[in-house]
Amino acid sequence: MLGGSSNVQSKWKRKSAVTLALTVLTSSQAILIVWSKRAGKYEYSVTTANFLVEALKCALSLAALTRTWRNEGVTEDNRLNTSLDEVSVYPIPAALYLVKNLLQYYIFAYVDAPGYQILKNFNIISTGVLYRIILKKQLSEIQWAAFILLCAGCTTAQLNSNSDQVLKTPVEGWLMAIVMAVLSGFAGVYTEAIIKKRPSRNINVQNFWLYVFGMAFNAIAIVVQDFDAVMNKGFFHGYSLVTVLMILNHALSGIAVSMVMKYADNIVKVYSTSVAMLLTAVLSVFLFGFHLSLAFFLGSTVVSVAIYLHSIGKLQR
Amino acid sequence: MLGGSSNVQSKWKRKSAVTLALTVLTSSQAILIVWSKRAGKYEYSVTTANFLVEALKCALSLAALTRTWRNEGVTEDNRLNTSLDEVSVYPIPAALYLVKNLLQYYIFAYVDAPGYQILKNFNIISTGVLYRIILKKQLSEIQWAAFILLCAGCTTAQLNSNSDQVLKTPVEGWLMAIVMAVLSGFAGVYTEAIIKKRPSRNINVQNFWLYVFGMAFNAIAIVVQDFDAVMNKGFFHGYSLVTVLMILNHALSGIAVSMVMKYADNIVKVYSTSVAMLLTAVLSVFLFGFHLSLAFFLGSTVVSVAIYLHSIGKLQR
Repeated sequence: MLGGSSNVQSKWKRKSAVTLALTVLTSSQAILIVWSKRAGKYEYSVTTANFLVEALKCALSLAALTRTWRNEGVTEDNRLNTSLDEVSVYPIPAALYLVKNLLQYYIFAYVDAPGYQILKNFNIISTGVLYRIILKKQLSEIQWAAFILLCAGCTTAQLNSNSDQVLKTPVEGWLMAIVMAVLSGFAGVYTEAIIKKRPSRNINVQNFWLYVFGMAFNAIAIVVQDFDAVMNKGFFHGYSLVTVLMILNHALSGIAVSMVMKYADNIVKVYSTSVAMLLTAVLSVFLFGFHLSLAFFLGSTVVSVAIYLHSIGKLQR
Repeated sequence: MLGGSSNVQSKWKRKSAVTLALTVLTSSQAILIVWSKRAGKYEYSVTTANFLVEALKCALSLAALTRTWRNEGVTEDNRLNTSLDEVSVYPIPAALYLVKNLLQYYIFAYVDAPGYQILKNFNIISTGVLYRIILKKQLSEIQWAAFILLCAGCTTAQLNSNSDQVLKTPVEGWLMAIVMAVLSGFAGVYTEAIIKKRPSRNINVQNFWLYVFGMAFNAIAIVVQDFDAVMNKGFFHGYSLVTVLMILNHALSGIAVSMVMKYADNIVKVYSTSVAMLLTAVLSVFLFGFHLSLAFFLGSTVVSVAIYLHSIGKLQR
């Protein structure tokens, strides 16, 4: 039992570090998106960028693994070899994300982009519900209340003068938004289940296999959506410095998400990305001269209270 | 100790009944205001109407008292006679309300009416803080969080496309809004202190004395603000059916507020009037064909969670 409390402390430190990394990376990601939009429309194929993100994550995981092998030698937990039993579940999250991304093209027939941003907050609720159902982890009453507040607060912070349009979304739009939220929540929770199933397994091996399938499914997306553009204009057509930075950022935040899944959970991930959303808005004031609305202040207040309630609402067992 | 639990139950019933009455009266009050605005601008002197409200409350308290005297006889607790010591504090709330109402005329130099509605939500916070300081009653951490949420939720529910104007309010406007919130919160908390100081004292006697001073201070307001109009056009100039209904409603809700102070507290009052605000909006959809905004749904969600948290957040002692 020696070193038990320092073990708890080092676990807490690791959890905080990966959560902080995810928050910073997610907010700089949004800043890059605003920057790239300001610089003009996307002229590159998004599917090729997504493929490169997966490839880069794969390469980074391998690089981390080679260092581990050099330092610790190859063990049962860090060897790349895997059983069919272990690897068979890895394609599922990648496949779910693919379906979700394909649906994304159809939902815009019913909702505009700002409306879609608002409907995306369903993700928060679906993640909470699926986390409870699939991972069978309990949230206390106060933590459930905090989760509803997080969803309401994030939506409030995003309100603008056109937001009421979203109430006129046809039923098909609502249904698709709910299906997409469930797919995305399911993918997140399922990834956590895979990664946590074998706690001693090296996270970089787990990531490597996740990303290999990510590459494969994104290769399919290139063929389905951007085959002609890539054939005629080339794989890297329209790439700029911002594009490269975005790919780099997406790769690092993808790895941070995996780390949060391993050392924390989906609930922490949702809070972290919500805080990143608020942080982005504040940074945009300084970077792009944006104005913050009253709705933003109210939403941020509600999100802050939600975080406080989540932290004091831990289940007493 | 016999009948202890039935005593608790009857206290809870009385508390619920007065709270319900306050909620219903406050929301019908707002409906009457919308109705009277639709019927045209106020053509009567508001100060004369306020005076009549106080007079009517006085009359109703006396009527209730004569019934009590007939049934129970005159006792130490229900006799109208009072000591200077008891009565000397009664003018204070009425004086505070008078100052607040006079300030109300000046704040409109800095904020428009919808902006003032939003700033009025400071009342919620000031009431909570003064309740803690003056009545020395504790709220738990969760109840404080709920109170902040109540304030944010009510403000969110009232957001419209022009709400951001309020952020441009000059410093003088903010300061006056805060002073008014403190005055109004102080008046409420002080009234509770007066009424609760002698729990066995008949509430109708306490009300009678409160309203006598209310009449006196409103008489001053008539002289200060509407002397010419009353002299030239008469006391009841511009009164209509809606005006009479509003006076009746204000009198009844005034009595309901006193009852809530006696049998519950200022915190319950704030929750009750907030729920009334939401109820009014929903009723206005049916009565006046209003549309509910996304902000309203989000604000209502936050207020509902606040009520839930307040109820589960009771201090364990």
